[in-house]
Amino acid sequence: MHYGSNMRSPRPGTRVLGVDPGLTRLGVGVVEGSVGRPLALVEVDVLRTPADLDPALRLARLAEGIEERIVRLRPDAVAVERVFSQHNVRTVMGTAQASGVAMMLAARHGIPVHLHTPSEVKAAVTGSGRADKEQVTQMVTRVLRLSAAPRPADAADALALAICHIWRGGAQNRLAEAIAKAGAR
Amino acid sequence: MHYGSNMRSPRPGTRVLGVDPGLTRLGVGVVEGSVGRPLALVEVDVLRTPADLDPALRLARLAEGIEERIVRLRPDAVAVERVFSQHNVRTVMGTAQASGVAMMLAARHGIPVHLHTPSEVKAAVTGSGRADKEQVTQMVTRVLRLSAAPRPADAADALALAICHIWRGGAQNRLAEAIAKAGAR
Repeated sequence: MHYGSNMRSPRPGTRVLGVDPGLTRLGVGVVEGSVGRPLALVEVDVLRTPADLDPALRLARLAEGIEERIVRLRPDAVAVERVFSQHNVRTVMGTAQASGVAMMLAARHGIPVHLHTPSEVKAAVTGSGRADKEQVTQMVTRVLRLSAAPRPADAADALALAICHIWRGGAQNRLAEAIAKAGAR
Repeated sequence: MHYGSNMRSPRPGTRVLGVDPGLTRLGVGVVEGSVGRPLALVEVDVLRTPADLDPALRLARLAEGIEERIVRLRPDAVAVERVFSQHNVRTVMGTAQASGVAMMLAARHGIPVHLHTPSEVKAAVTGSGRADKEQVTQMVTRVLRLSAAPRPADAADALALAICHIWRGGAQNRLAEAIAKAGAR
């Protein structure tokens, strides 16, 4: 029997695809859950393209991998790291291009896209906006109750983005609800 | 009678789609021709997206306009302006994202992508890498024998990219041919 896209069972909360953009390594991690309940890892991977490949072909390969996950895993939201121009000048253009491709593909599939800064992600996951990569990896491992830490760091960062989005989204929703209730009095 | 994609009549030279990337205005200009013969304007336009629209939706709208032109006009090559991180820090990330989307779409359709720096384009079209926008617009108008200058500057810049690509590509091909001949002696 074939189950169409409207036949899937209800999900335990929100399913978020986190994207840590990059031309050489692009982290894609999917997490499912809601605030106040344990989160679950759905899938995590790192898409890689060789540095000597034509840049447009690198972007097309990344697009293929991202879109395959969007179609197969049908996330409710896509969380992408916000890229800043002041960091890593040598690679920032490729990183921005990869982030643009991920954002555009999500929008084309009707999935809302949210950008989170690296310090927002660190603060949401570890409690400190200045946490280092290893602290983020450790907290992601603990939050998702994984038996081994996700490697490389791009994989952990993609999961951290998804976790951040669920937790911040939840906080924002509760705030919006509280404001709505206060206004209704 | 239906003419498939292999049935089209031979073109007078190369057809190049020039893309001047940007989130607010993205220039798309198509030029056809070859070195040493008059070039012809095929089509030029500027795609616009509102600044208050969600960035991912802006990229998706631009993608739609770029892909529609790739499919309908079937360029032999796509020339995109190379984006540098040192300029216009406030808007450079959006510009890089838009350029990544254009590059990826061209690659997906099997069309080779070439990047040209602003000074390469200015030098190819006006003879000076330091020409201003008005000089570029005037030379584009003259080279394509247009009755009116293409406006805004993004439209002229997209055409300048396509012209630059045909002229530089031609020079590079002639050089390659000369080297091949010299090697064959």
